[in-house]
Amino acid sequence: MSHDSASNKEEHITEHIDDYAGHDHITIHPNAWSKYRLMMREYVAEFLGVCILIIFGTGVDCQVVLSSVTGVASSQKGSYLSINIGWAVGTAMGVWVSGGISGGHINPAVTIALATYRGFPWKKVPGYIAAQVLGGLVGAALVYANYYHAISIFEGGDDVRTLATAGLFSTYALDYMTAVSAFFSEFLATAVLVVVVLAIGDRKNCPPPAGLAPLVLFVLILGIGACLGMETGYAINPARDLGPRILTAMVGYGSQVFTFRKSLTPHRLWCPVISPILGAQAGAIFYDAFIYLGDESPFNKPCVSSFCSLI
Amino acid sequence: MSHDSASNKEEHITEHIDDYAGHDHITIHPNAWSKYRLMMREYVAEFLGVCILIIFGTGVDCQVVLSSVTGVASSQKGSYLSINIGWAVGTAMGVWVSGGISGGHINPAVTIALATYRGFPWKKVPGYIAAQVLGGLVGAALVYANYYHAISIFEGGDDVRTLATAGLFSTYALDYMTAVSAFFSEFLATAVLVVVVLAIGDRKNCPPPAGLAPLVLFVLILGIGACLGMETGYAINPARDLGPRILTAMVGYGSQVFTFRKSLTPHRLWCPVISPILGAQAGAIFYDAFIYLGDESPFNKPCVSSFCSLI
Amino acid sequence: MSHDSASNKEEHITEHIDDYAGHDHITIHPNAWSKYRLMMREYVAEFLGVCILIIFGTGVDCQVVLSSVTGVASSQKGSYLSINIGWAVGTAMGVWVSGGISGGHINPAVTIALATYRGFPWKKVPGYIAAQVLGGLVGAALVYANYYHAISIFEGGDDVRTLATAGLFSTYALDYMTAVSAFFSEFLATAVLVVVVLAIGDRKNCPPPAGLAPLVLFVLILGIGACLGMETGYAINPARDLGPRILTAMVGYGSQVFTFRKSLTPHRLWCPVISPILGAQAGAIFYDAFIYLGDESPFNKPCVSSFCSLI
Amino acid sequence: MSHDSASNKEEHITEHIDDYAGHDHITIHPNAWSKYRLMMREYVAEFLGVCILIIFGTGVDCQVVLSSVTGVASSQKGSYLSINIGWAVGTAMGVWVSGGISGGHINPAVTIALATYRGFPWKKVPGYIAAQVLGGLVGAALVYANYYHAISIFEGGDDVRTLATAGLFSTYALDYMTAVSAFFSEFLATAVLVVVVLAIGDRKNCPPPAGLAPLVLFVLILGIGACLGMETGYAINPARDLGPRILTAMVGYGSQVFTFRKSLTPHRLWCPVISPILGAQAGAIFYDAFIYLGDESPFNKPCVSSFCSLI
Repeated sequence: MSHDSASNKEEHITEHIDDYAGHDHITIHPNAWSKYRLMMREYVAEFLGVCILIIFGTGVDCQVVLSSVTGVASSQKGSYLSINIGWAVGTAMGVWVSGGISGGHINPAVTIALATYRGFPWKKVPGYIAAQVLGGLVGAALVYANYYHAISIFEGGDDVRTLATAGLFSTYALDYMTAVSAFFSEFLATAVLVVVVLAIGDRKNCPPPAGLAPLVLFVLILGIGACLGMETGYAINPARDLGPRILTAMVGYGSQVFTFRKSLTPHRLWCPVISPILGAQAGAIFYDAFIYLGDESPFNKPCVSSFCSLI
Repeated sequence: MSHDSASNKEEHITEHIDDYAGHDHITIHPNAWSKYRLMMREYVAEFLGVCILIIFGTGVDCQVVLSSVTGVASSQKGSYLSINIGWAVGTAMGVWVSGGISGGHINPAVTIALATYRGFPWKKVPGYIAAQVLGGLVGAALVYANYYHAISIFEGGDDVRTLATAGLFSTYALDYMTAVSAFFSEFLATAVLVVVVLAIGDRKNCPPPAGLAPLVLFVLILGIGACLGMETGYAINPARDLGPRILTAMVGYGSQVFTFRKSLTPHRLWCPVISPILGAQAGAIFYDAFIYLGDESPFNKPCVSSFCSLI
Repeated sequence: MSHDSASNKEEHITEHIDDYAGHDHITIHPNAWSKYRLMMREYVAEFLGVCILIIFGTGVDCQVVLSSVTGVASSQKGSYLSINIGWAVGTAMGVWVSGGISGGHINPAVTIALATYRGFPWKKVPGYIAAQVLGGLVGAALVYANYYHAISIFEGGDDVRTLATAGLFSTYALDYMTAVSAFFSEFLATAVLVVVVLAIGDRKNCPPPAGLAPLVLFVLILGIGACLGMETGYAINPARDLGPRILTAMVGYGSQVFTFRKSLTPHRLWCPVISPILGAQAGAIFYDAFIYLGDESPFNKPCVSSFCSLI
Repeated sequence: MSHDSASNKEEHITEHIDDYAGHDHITIHPNAWSKYRLMMREYVAEFLGVCILIIFGTGVDCQVVLSSVTGVASSQKGSYLSINIGWAVGTAMGVWVSGGISGGHINPAVTIALATYRGFPWKKVPGYIAAQVLGGLVGAALVYANYYHAISIFEGGDDVRTLATAGLFSTYALDYMTAVSAFFSEFLATAVLVVVVLAIGDRKNCPPPAGLAPLVLFVLILGIGACLGMETGYAINPARDLGPRILTAMVGYGSQVFTFRKSLTPHRLWCPVISPILGAQAGAIFYDAFIYLGDESPFNKPCVSSFCSLI
């Protein structure tokens, strides 16, 4: 989740060309395909990053929960801690495969926060988010295919699909959580996530060595799941929730995955989508207001700007 | 928990100015707010570090213990190992967000030890400690709000608050622990903590690469919790205990959080507050007496000083 | 699993000689043995890497499963998570002992993928694979010897050897898995494995610092086992499965380890051998088609080649 | 466990002086004490390293096992995996506090192997081993004091001390293990340990960055405990076993800690003391014979030496 990705495509290509010049093992556009790849590359990286995140994350949900039924496995294959570890591994691997290409956001809430506070170009934001959600959908499809037989045994038939296993793919808050509580839980966890993401990307703070940010994220997501995860399932990432949720709607769970808790209509959007986006903003505002010195942040613009004149 | 932070504010600002000069992306005081931020920055970092430590730490306490009741969750969401991991993550993240700003002490016992043996300026000590305790209080408040409904289910009502859940926020020694045993347990664990903190900050020893000290602390706190944690709840940090304890007193637990084990009056202060401070001193004295070569340590002052003349 | 190993033996030796020249502590061929060692060195490293992988991996299988019987141990010594950790440690240690010598493939599927897409010399491939399978066989033999008495207690006698303990050494898919499902599960997991391996070896992406790739692999294999492991036992490595399977056939389990699920004849080869090889190819194709810029990849050959003319 | 420590004391001091010259914060012998410290420093570091290893290791043994009794704690505070983690943390922390001073051997088997194959000066070996055993004894004493009340509750009285709790401090093989099996188990685990230690200290292989060797050892010891630990308690370190064993004899367990399994008299020495030493030799011989190129190894001496003439 570094935020050093090129601020516009032209610069980006130029940078690559410079790199090429300095290293004789890489040539520019060696063939017709290369041009298309260069255009898609950042978006494919975000797609791939979320896809891998979801393969690990929904994979561990399936393995641990489904194996609690003896027809699926002779003994349970993991515990709640395994689930926390699985999502942490997914996050780390998602960023390791995409970090150097797209910045490794793999989370729309992070992408929007970086656009707002770190100069990530807004024109790339829609493409990033679309790629992220699509990655979540495809990752969930691969895991659904992988655990198809086990899901059917758990549900009691190939044509039985209930929220009991829909919950393996997208998040559903505990029954007693009010809309406000669910919102707060996701808001708090995402704010913590973004404060850490900004801190480890701030070279005036205490950043890990190049290439090890994903290790920090492993530890971070392990902790968020273990410490703040049970109430809402720690979406903290709209793509992590929406992509798999759309997949479940497509493969037979139907509209129930969207009408869950209809009496709390806005819940589904507020809890796993709006709340992480706002929580990310809150985390970034706190970090920039009190800690950050870099001039990409609106908090560090000269006072001639309208923003600063408010202070 | 590096101890390379500037030894006085004037130097600190100068250093920043030098940095600014060498890097055209940062300007000094771009707006009115910047000046205030620079004054508060180190203290806010300590506040933020402890706040994040406590969000993870008391968060995992709440999640694991509260979910053992079926009204809260269908199955327990974690184990004692999860609790050890949660506190370890909190420590690592607390230092990752503050390490480059304030040195990442996030522990009054460490701050006092660094002031005594590593030249950390004493005039900053009161501000650091106040920020640390306040961070603990605010972190606990956020977690209390987050788990409010679950706590009420666990306790049996919104207006029932007993030591059963107060213990999720601050530490209470096991019943059979005497005052001496409780003191010794915290003393030993904090001495080990400080020996490791000083070793990984000693460039003549075997320090991890820049930016990875928090990873070492993750492993360290994981171990302290797993190995030395059960008797007193491993406060090993006065701010970690006092901040959340004050919060519990404020939100409805009342004075019982301070009068616990009244017959052992000094226990509350000795076990989670005085003992870590003295244990940190003991660890630092051992390390400096036998290992450390740097001249900030009183053990390495020339013999003209009164301290050395004792030897 | 770096893929920077020398592309042919002559270059390799020259490189060593250059190194020797620059460092006076090493001399070329100081004695008669040195020449033989230099010829065998890469192959021995692969042998050693897989041997260590299998010592940890089948070791943890034995310890956790055998200790579930009270005659073996008073309480179970580990859990399914321990098994995931054991295989992860084995992978990391296998690469740490071989990475700088042979590239640390320790997996025929990886070796073949690197030969296809990263210019690893094909003439070394048979030797690498033979060394890897032999390493698996020897590692399993050491673990079999180590747990001999416990296996006998578990089975009920020194001369009783059934699939119940053969499954501690090589992988057997769950009963309800069809051949297609088992193939898909191994295919998916190996594709993810290879995408990550290529990403952390791609210096245009987000590689970890030199010497820490095994740490990434530790996290990766921990996740693959926790998230995608239960259905087929996550071979994802033909040598990991074949070596120990041959050993079990040799030490008394007989031909049943090969005739398992005879009605699904091709299963044994498809699931733990062919599927990982093809999954590795799929992962490499995806990564190279969409992300990789280095010119060793067939995707980056100039268009004069027949391959590119297809695009 | 780096093996770059100075090969004799004179060189060592000279190196320090050079360092001092280049860094104006450190002065040589600023006071009377400094001279004594310099003489003791390496030995104290080994003492401290083993002491910290044993504080964590026997600490986690005590916490997990004692808390299984409800009089000690309301629920068990950890699992077998916690025990594996505790010993892994202890090893990592023991090396982090001593690595830059003494090389961080913290294991007589490693010290002897480095003396044999890496030129570690034999004249330091007795002092290192004495310091290591003493560190084990003192660490065990601190943990015994820490868990004194819990041990008494577990045993049923302050004056009851049986092998049930002696086993928390030193290792006792499972009942059905023969002397040969126990020997083999420790031999195998220590050989693996030393192969990894030599590999990560071999700059021609795949060493981790400076200061991260202890992290590798954390992963390694976690794996050895999880995969090869249950049969003999994975001493793999004579000081780890002998120091705490002597302590238990001293504090009231009496001679039973030495006469355990008297019918297998040599067991106690062979299993946790001789076997690790020989296993370390075997690991080093394998690594040097097939992988290592550095000229400190006897395998790389010129053929004029009598050793090489055997080949």
